[in-house]
Amino acid sequence: MNDTPATTGGTLDAFQHVTVIGAGVIGASWTALFLAKGLTVTVNDPLPDVEKRMREQLEEAVPALQALGLPTTDLDRNLRFEADLGRAVADADVVQENGPERLDFKQDLFARIEQATRPDTLLLSSSSSIPATAMAQSMAQPGRLVIGHPFNPPHLLPLVEVVPGQQTEPDTVKRAVAFYEALGKKPQVLHKEVPGFVANRLQAALFREAVNLVVQGVVTEQELDVIVTSSIGLRWAVAGPFRSFHVGGGPGGLPHFLQHLGPVWEDLWRDLGTPTLNEETAKLLSQDADFGETIEELASARDEGEIKVMHALGLS
Amino acid sequence: MNDTPATTGGTLDAFQHVTVIGAGVIGASWTALFLAKGLTVTVNDPLPDVEKRMREQLEEAVPALQALGLPTTDLDRNLRFEADLGRAVADADVVQENGPERLDFKQDLFARIEQATRPDTLLLSSSSSIPATAMAQSMAQPGRLVIGHPFNPPHLLPLVEVVPGQQTEPDTVKRAVAFYEALGKKPQVLHKEVPGFVANRLQAALFREAVNLVVQGVVTEQELDVIVTSSIGLRWAVAGPFRSFHVGGGPGGLPHFLQHLGPVWEDLWRDLGTPTLNEETAKLLSQDADFGETIEELASARDEGEIKVMHALGLS
Repeated sequence: MNDTPATTGGTLDAFQHVTVIGAGVIGASWTALFLAKGLTVTVNDPLPDVEKRMREQLEEAVPALQALGLPTTDLDRNLRFEADLGRAVADADVVQENGPERLDFKQDLFARIEQATRPDTLLLSSSSSIPATAMAQSMAQPGRLVIGHPFNPPHLLPLVEVVPGQQTEPDTVKRAVAFYEALGKKPQVLHKEVPGFVANRLQAALFREAVNLVVQGVVTEQELDVIVTSSIGLRWAVAGPFRSFHVGGGPGGLPHFLQHLGPVWEDLWRDLGTPTLNEETAKLLSQDADFGETIEELASARDEGEIKVMHALGLS
Repeated sequence: MNDTPATTGGTLDAFQHVTVIGAGVIGASWTALFLAKGLTVTVNDPLPDVEKRMREQLEEAVPALQALGLPTTDLDRNLRFEADLGRAVADADVVQENGPERLDFKQDLFARIEQATRPDTLLLSSSSSIPATAMAQSMAQPGRLVIGHPFNPPHLLPLVEVVPGQQTEPDTVKRAVAFYEALGKKPQVLHKEVPGFVANRLQAALFREAVNLVVQGVVTEQELDVIVTSSIGLRWAVAGPFRSFHVGGGPGGLPHFLQHLGPVWEDLWRDLGTPTLNEETAKLLSQDADFGETIEELASARDEGEIKVMHALGLS
């Protein structure tokens, strides 16, 4: 079971040429997915070694793409590099932007992008923190821009948070959802712009208490991780918190749960910690950050595990 | 004293006879697991229809037990009922208590249990909210009692939080861990008693922000659930929050992550909501609590999904 049936997305016919702005971790991961899905990708990034870096990152994504059942032979045959922004976006059906998280940079970037693209080019930003309303302030047609914030790595995790700004046109949202669904993703449209959007706010809330419990000496980082993977992580891979508590409420469901256990949860809410990530806390957390393997090994193991779970739940 | 080694895959030789106090949802789930693992179980519960209710609940656990590869033929052949507390615990190697979450009730109960058991009987409480220190206050030998708090349903989810009280003897903790590990569980010993222990505090932290986002109209309950299952749930089934952020930090790991993104998370922490579960909020959440299937169907789907994930990750 999952909360929604596996996506039976439409086609990518209207989205054949994607321009990826920014060849960092997120941009490269998007590029890997777009190419594996048969799209033509133009990468725009001012870095002199962008081609080398991109190809290295594509290579790293291959095992995950293969495990997802996607073709990876000659993955880069529809890959182009274009350092000039105007030329890079001129033929794009879609622009997926992954530049630095700076408001002034993005405002200027999208003002230039809209002038160099066709009027019907779909403009998407992977930003995790800058809302479309602010980002579009220098645009003549702010209605064309919407946030398409993936969960890292985007070639693997299903979620894309589609966050319209105050001026984003409904048709832009609709086409963004169609694009991501056709890629096999699970786009979720937020009804309001809030800092951090939804997934990272939820993650932040749990992480705050995780930091608190480690700082208080209740558990180590590694012990807390095991607690999560053997309880709430396992559960939330299958059913989100509301559905879980609905089932947890027994025959009376969520209403019964809230009525009878609401005060218990409120007591816990009052007791949750409010740590800061000051130098002392960062030092404490950093000195114990030994997870037994190299970062590369851990990243591979994470990807492999996530793919296994997605297969098991019919998400891929 | 028994000296069962506290290693994964240890035997249940020293724990052949378990007395389960309380035949509610948790007690019945424990009973199902103990029986499927070949133990003899005596159930103590004052309810007149305890036998009928227990057998119904065992029946419901059968599909999950089978999916976990456990034998379920004649599951109740080593099941006994004994309404008299003293007689129920007299021959027990282990007592797993699942009574009402009331301090006075549990204090009285364990004072009576310790008098009726052998001195080496392991005394465990499934309590999710009452610490062992408080619970053991009427006991002559408080060192014998430790919390063994499972994540629901205990016949399925791996986590058991083992929470010693201030007077719990180290040997009691060691034997509790050995018992749960021999059952195939993942016991985690907490170093301090904190309200709600760890898993529920983390769950409470995320749930608070989930309630906030729904109340603010950012997403519906159902949309938030999909966001969780297609991002953080999937991730945390595989790797806990610290390991995930260690990988997310790139080559510099968690230290780099905290140094560069710490302020971003602190900003989000400051922006998290602090809703209450007052009547208005409970009503709002209750009226939209439609998850498309009956509670029974949702519970079965949850169990099936969790078993699939456990199989996929080698947890069962």
